[in-house]
Amino acid sequence: MKFATYCADGNAFYGAVTNTGMIALNGDFPQWPTLLDVVQNDGLAELAAAAEGKAVTHTDFAYEMVLPNARRILCVGVNFPDRNAEYKDGSEQPKYMSLFPRFASGFTGHNQPLIRPPESPQLDYEGEVAIVIGKGGRRIAQADAYDHIAALTLCNEGTIRDWVRHAKFNVTQGKNWDKSGAIGPWLVPFTDAAQLDDARIITRVNGEVRQDDVLARMMHPIRREIEYISTFMTLEPGDIIVTGTPTGSGARLDPPQFLKPGDVVEIEVNGIGTLRNTIEDEAQ
Amino acid sequence: MKFATYCADGNAFYGAVTNTGMIALNGDFPQWPTLLDVVQNDGLAELAAAAEGKAVTHTDFAYEMVLPNARRILCVGVNFPDRNAEYKDGSEQPKYMSLFPRFASGFTGHNQPLIRPPESPQLDYEGEVAIVIGKGGRRIAQADAYDHIAALTLCNEGTIRDWVRHAKFNVTQGKNWDKSGAIGPWLVPFTDAAQLDDARIITRVNGEVRQDDVLARMMHPIRREIEYISTFMTLEPGDIIVTGTPTGSGARLDPPQFLKPGDVVEIEVNGIGTLRNTIEDEAQ
Repeated sequence: MKFATYCADGNAFYGAVTNTGMIALNGDFPQWPTLLDVVQNDGLAELAAAAEGKAVTHTDFAYEMVLPNARRILCVGVNFPDRNAEYKDGSEQPKYMSLFPRFASGFTGHNQPLIRPPESPQLDYEGEVAIVIGKGGRRIAQADAYDHIAALTLCNEGTIRDWVRHAKFNVTQGKNWDKSGAIGPWLVPFTDAAQLDDARIITRVNGEVRQDDVLARMMHPIRREIEYISTFMTLEPGDIIVTGTPTGSGARLDPPQFLKPGDVVEIEVNGIGTLRNTIEDEAQ
Repeated sequence: MKFATYCADGNAFYGAVTNTGMIALNGDFPQWPTLLDVVQNDGLAELAAAAEGKAVTHTDFAYEMVLPNARRILCVGVNFPDRNAEYKDGSEQPKYMSLFPRFASGFTGHNQPLIRPPESPQLDYEGEVAIVIGKGGRRIAQADAYDHIAALTLCNEGTIRDWVRHAKFNVTQGKNWDKSGAIGPWLVPFTDAAQLDDARIITRVNGEVRQDDVLARMMHPIRREIEYISTFMTLEPGDIIVTGTPTGSGARLDPPQFLKPGDVVEIEVNGIGTLRNTIEDEAQ
């Protein structure tokens, strides 16, 4: 079962995703106006039960960012070793992960265009798995970390590359352009450690593989991310952690290859799905 | 007229601040459950009108972070030249400001303790003026910037100093400890450019002046902050910009002097007020 936020006939809905269309479910849960409310109230199982046997309600719809009103989104910086690097004893690895918040306004939904602004030609992709917290907590032990995840989704952590380096100590202004990234297509409930432990992430631009790695190679595994982040802030249901991208972004290519209108970026993870986005220049 | 969010008798209120206590106003505006809703709906003038002639409703109350459900808080890094530095031609100034988001969970209210966690003895203060956006916009010109400010408040942008340097490119994990900073005491409607242009900020620890500067010396003036930030993200009513701290934080002293239980930090700005906080070790 998969759950999405979407628009149809000019209205916002959330519901279950099927092969033939959406089953709207928000009408069944007036106490939970958005999919974020469902997650915050541990309601994904109830949602699944409500969808059983129901008919598709919408075949003509547009995906939205999966939790458009998410309050806290924390991204982990590049989190995979270079494919050619050797880290036999881990000594080359940074001790702590790099972390930066992104606002929900920086993300659009599946099948929507990422927006390239007139200020920069350096719109770049970063394929990542995102986890959605289902159970809050502070100072969560690694052994318990997976118990705090409600669902998985995907993120194109789209970046305006030259603006990332405007300031010395923060990437904020390269990471928060309106609709420069995407989160979706949907939430997949997290029920089995293998969904993360056996996951492989592949990013394609116009069909060409640009990133390809397995989550098992993460320098800071997801269990550690939850442990570390919850050291300084109490995690809450609905928080999103974007867990880090493999090497192979467009900036790393020689010469660099940034995204341009007409390009199609796909981020695929087995068991979660494929997040697909086009590129558009911002309307002037 | 000043407006605050506060707790009394175990309930949350917002209202007008008087010399003898609070005038609760949220009961008059059921359409605006929180002070953030008031700001988002340009309602501060209506709030002021509603308070006229009303009697104090609460003399026993505790201040909360002034907009506890604020969705986006952007902080500008150190934004005043060193007091001994000369910037005759501006050539030593960084071209772009450093920016980092903080979550609302990192802030408490006026007269509440900042929390020092067991993981670090390096809790430090940073006194700053915070502006609250009243009118949204994208690519706002400096000349129009002040028209987008609804209100002013103060921020102790409390920081766990050693965690700021865990990662190379981001200060996130030193800047988002639960209740490590404060925003308040109240909102003062912004009606006159002089409220910012003639403001002087003084930070005292146990009565000793640690920071003392005038906003007119900012390297990146507030008009420029609004212009720059709104280049990459559409500002929305209720967004908070924490505008940058003068030199003189505890980390800069020789030897460094961090905050400890028993200390009292006061941040005073003429025309806004004084934000006062104590320090407590986190309950174990």
